Amino acid sequence: MTTATGWVPEPVERPDPRLSINHATIKRADLATALRVTADAGVQSIGLWREPVNEVGLATASRMLTDSGLRFSTHCRGGFFTLPEGPERVAALDDNRRAIEETATLAAAGAAGSTAVLVLVAGGLPEGSRDLIGARERVRDAIGALADDAKAAGVTLAIEPLHPMYASDRAVVSTLGQALDIAADFDPAVVGAAVDTFHIWWDPQVLEQIARAGREGRIATYQVCDWKTPLAEDVLLSRHYMDEGMIDFGSLTRAVIETGYDRDIEVELFNADIWADDPARVVARTAQAFAAAVTPHLP
Amino acid sequence: MTTATGWVPEPVERPDPRLSINHATIKRADLATALRVTADAGVQSIGLWREPVNEVGLATASRMLTDSGLRFSTHCRGGFFTLPEGPERVAALDDNRRAIEETATLAAAGAAGSTAVLVLVAGGLPEGSRDLIGARERVRDAIGALADDAKAAGVTLAIEPLHPMYASDRAVVSTLGQALDIAADFDPAVVGAAVDTFHIWWDPQVLEQIARAGREGRIATYQVCDWKTPLAEDVLLSRHYMDEGMIDFGSLTRAVIETGYDRDIEVELFNADIWADDPARVVARTAQAFAAAVTPHLP
Repeated sequence: MTTATGWVPEPVERPDPRLSINHATIKRADLATALRVTADAGVQSIGLWREPVNEVGLATASRMLTDSGLRFSTHCRGGFFTLPEGPERVAALDDNRRAIEETATLAAAGAAGSTAVLVLVAGGLPEGSRDLIGARERVRDAIGALADDAKAAGVTLAIEPLHPMYASDRAVVSTLGQALDIAADFDPAVVGAAVDTFHIWWDPQVLEQIARAGREGRIATYQVCDWKTPLAEDVLLSRHYMDEGMIDFGSLTRAVIETGYDRDIEVELFNADIWADDPARVVARTAQAFAAAVTPHLP
Repeated sequence: MTTATGWVPEPVERPDPRLSINHATIKRADLATALRVTADAGVQSIGLWREPVNEVGLATASRMLTDSGLRFSTHCRGGFFTLPEGPERVAALDDNRRAIEETATLAAAGAAGSTAVLVLVAGGLPEGSRDLIGARERVRDAIGALADDAKAAGVTLAIEPLHPMYASDRAVVSTLGQALDIAADFDPAVVGAAVDTFHIWWDPQVLEQIARAGREGRIATYQVCDWKTPLAEDVLLSRHYMDEGMIDFGSLTRAVIETGYDRDIEVELFNADIWADDPARVVARTAQAFAAAVTPHLP
């Protein structure tokens, strides 16, 4: 395999067929490059982000995705639902409606087995607010406002609980149990949860909440990456390859698989060192780590 | 009020009678200075740390505490219970037994209303381990090994759930509910929990778990400090004065008070800027923030 930079990675074993590369893992690659290096590595699936899709336009992005032969696993991301009533909140909801449409279009353009899942990040506390309970209520209200649009488009909204260290500035939804409590008001085909190891591995209730998510039909996407300390200076960028940190991928993956989860499994790495690396090398390294940490726990 | 450095703080209102200054808030002050600036500010209570106490020796520290006229609210800290069987674990347990004795001695030396509470930090994952569940079992076992010593000494072991961002390197006990589940095997006079706003404010179950902790007689100490993002580069040092961040001290404090909690309320600030400041000024500023954020919610 040769890359844009001419660098040739070590040959790796054939990537796990369920591995999906989230575009954020190779964030500096444009959409064309991301699709190419992912497919060239023998990976079968990709998760996309709105900004690079909209950079080329949705129609073009869809054609590129179709041409890549890749499955589409998730679209990232909607949400930011904690704003109080007002024009900014209205604009945020409208933007989420566009994201729903993009998700449906891309899922139709991806190879067979693609899933129409829009990942939602709840949003943090509004500037100057300490009202966490109120912010959480606004998340529930916003999902209620979008559920009919999602249903009409055949899209599942995946509420992603983020690690509690992001509770004030990014997501007032911090546990899988809390995401499931919000989702409970809605049809599981319309509102589910994103199960990301990085965000929930520490939760003493994680295994029982994964089982519950399965029973309730809510696992819209399972995502894996590792946790390691010390955290990066920007704690958003502390995500690591699955063989470099402290998370027990065995117990978590088995719990997800036991629910009957049969979709792709995404790897989304926010990490400045990984972003600085060659995207083809990153994809190969991701496939390697996935094979070591996750594949042994798949059926 | 004049201080060692000659700096004269702005006059502040009389500190809340329930405020206790944890020595870590003025970490660079030696024990004598910490006791003096706390008492000089009109604060009535202090929480101590093992290292400065042992620097002067327990007998001397006890006399100094008695002479200060201050109440003693907690001793920090025991724990680090996640080591596997072996000489290091035996040594850690022995060290905890010494901490129990120190706690009893200091509580007896403090003014009337002092409480014999030893704060326990569970410990993180041992080097190279991903076995979070096993580490948690070892915490439970260690508390079982120390409970009789604590009971004999009249000391309450306060399990402190730490924020989940410390789960891998400092404390595998991450929620109040989890601390209460561990404590449930023991007499509430012997094993309780430390309720620290910084660590648990984000928890969607926090109010019900505080109520449960009260029903079960487990709130050994209530501690307040604020959360603000972006986090400090060393995330251990991200604790702030109570009027500077995002925590709603009203709902949390009222929930604690409604359980009948009538002990001192500690402020423990790990923060490089605060540590670099004059200790008398820090105590005055802490009293001010406490009066603004906490006092209005006390009976």
